[in-house]
Amino acid sequence: MTRIRELPRLVVMASGRGSNLEAILDAIDRGELRARVVAVISDRPDAQALERAARRQIEALALDYRAFPDRDAYHEALLEHLVRIAPDLIVLAGYMRLLPGRIVARFPQRIVNIHPSLLPAFPGLNPHRQALDYGVKVSGCTVHFVDEGMDTGPIIMQAAVPVLEDDTEKSLAERILRREHELYPRAIAAVLDGRVRVEGRRVRIFAPGAAGDHEQDEQKEGDSRCKSGEP
Amino acid sequence: MTRIRELPRLVVMASGRGSNLEAILDAIDRGELRARVVAVISDRPDAQALERAARRQIEALALDYRAFPDRDAYHEALLEHLVRIAPDLIVLAGYMRLLPGRIVARFPQRIVNIHPSLLPAFPGLNPHRQALDYGVKVSGCTVHFVDEGMDTGPIIMQAAVPVLEDDTEKSLAERILRREHELYPRAIAAVLDGRVRVEGRRVRIFAPGAAGDHEQDEQKEGDSRCKSGEP
Repeated sequence: MTRIRELPRLVVMASGRGSNLEAILDAIDRGELRARVVAVISDRPDAQALERAARRQIEALALDYRAFPDRDAYHEALLEHLVRIAPDLIVLAGYMRLLPGRIVARFPQRIVNIHPSLLPAFPGLNPHRQALDYGVKVSGCTVHFVDEGMDTGPIIMQAAVPVLEDDTEKSLAERILRREHELYPRAIAAVLDGRVRVEGRRVRIFAPGAAGDHEQDEQKEGDSRCKSGEP
Repeated sequence: MTRIRELPRLVVMASGRGSNLEAILDAIDRGELRARVVAVISDRPDAQALERAARRQIEALALDYRAFPDRDAYHEALLEHLVRIAPDLIVLAGYMRLLPGRIVARFPQRIVNIHPSLLPAFPGLNPHRQALDYGVKVSGCTVHFVDEGMDTGPIIMQAAVPVLEDDTEKSLAERILRREHELYPRAIAAVLDGRVRVEGRRVRIFAPGAAGDHEQDEQKEGDSRCKSGEP
């Protein structure tokens, strides 16, 4: 009798349309990510991410931030739900609120976020606008562990994306978003596989099947040629 | 009778070994950069860049910073030499001092610098150390116009370079330096060709032969696929 190991349980938190949630679900469907999204939580009852979850028979939990008397009460309810669901990993996907220390501490290295810039550049709100206003020629996206700061946790993976001269916030956001959809499932898979080790601020990632070895099969310098930002 | 248009005159300023100077001279030799280095200036009399210049019969000017009574006197002498030499472009190549406002103002959009990080991340000293300490997975290099700030001027070109997990300052610096040597001559050529236009903080670059048009022949999105930083 074959015993199938239980799939790692993900909770995805989103405030918006949840396109990264969709990318994660698609990666699961394609067999590229061995995991199950057991719940989607949003601070906004009108978040499209909740609809996406419901369509897929995933628990869709609206915790309307404005319905709580204060920030603490909201976070207390959120923490209770997270503890109840007991996810292996909490995946922030366009979740627009800072998590308080007591939630971060409860899930050490078990909360990840994706941010549409090459951190530490352009943290916080409106990173695309910030990048355009600064005039950078290369931006990108960053998957990182969540700590109590604003987009300050240890970086798991990053991808560079060129900024084109006629870019608007919208066109840049779309170009970066396409990379986010590739990067995030891969980063989540690495974390769930136990291939990610945090050493101070530096994060080491082992190749699949090489856990514990210091192999870097997938991170060869040959991949480094990036023409981005050079007209 | 054919009249050869006079080549644009470059002054290169360097504090160290001058490998970017060498890359510029090589690009000129290969015909990729239509320019002439008319002088190399260093604040350090022992800078290897001066030897490189002398070997090529280029004016090698040592302005020993420590030999001047103060910062102002040094900059006064430097400015006098720059005015005498009357370069079309001043190229900072590992020049480790901040230029004062009166020199910057004297050569508006005529001073460029290269910095081994993706600015605005990791400006100033020891950018490789800063990048490793932060734990980024992508770094790179930036060519920018010089203003009075520290690595804050409008960005002309950037290139992304992956940070590998076992990188040291030395290995990362070498990988970035190879990209610098490609990027800097191309950025200088674009400026000298009049293909660079500064619009606020954003810098627009026109394709060769397309000055005034908004063509971006060389900056297609197809170039954007960069695997850097994704193991």
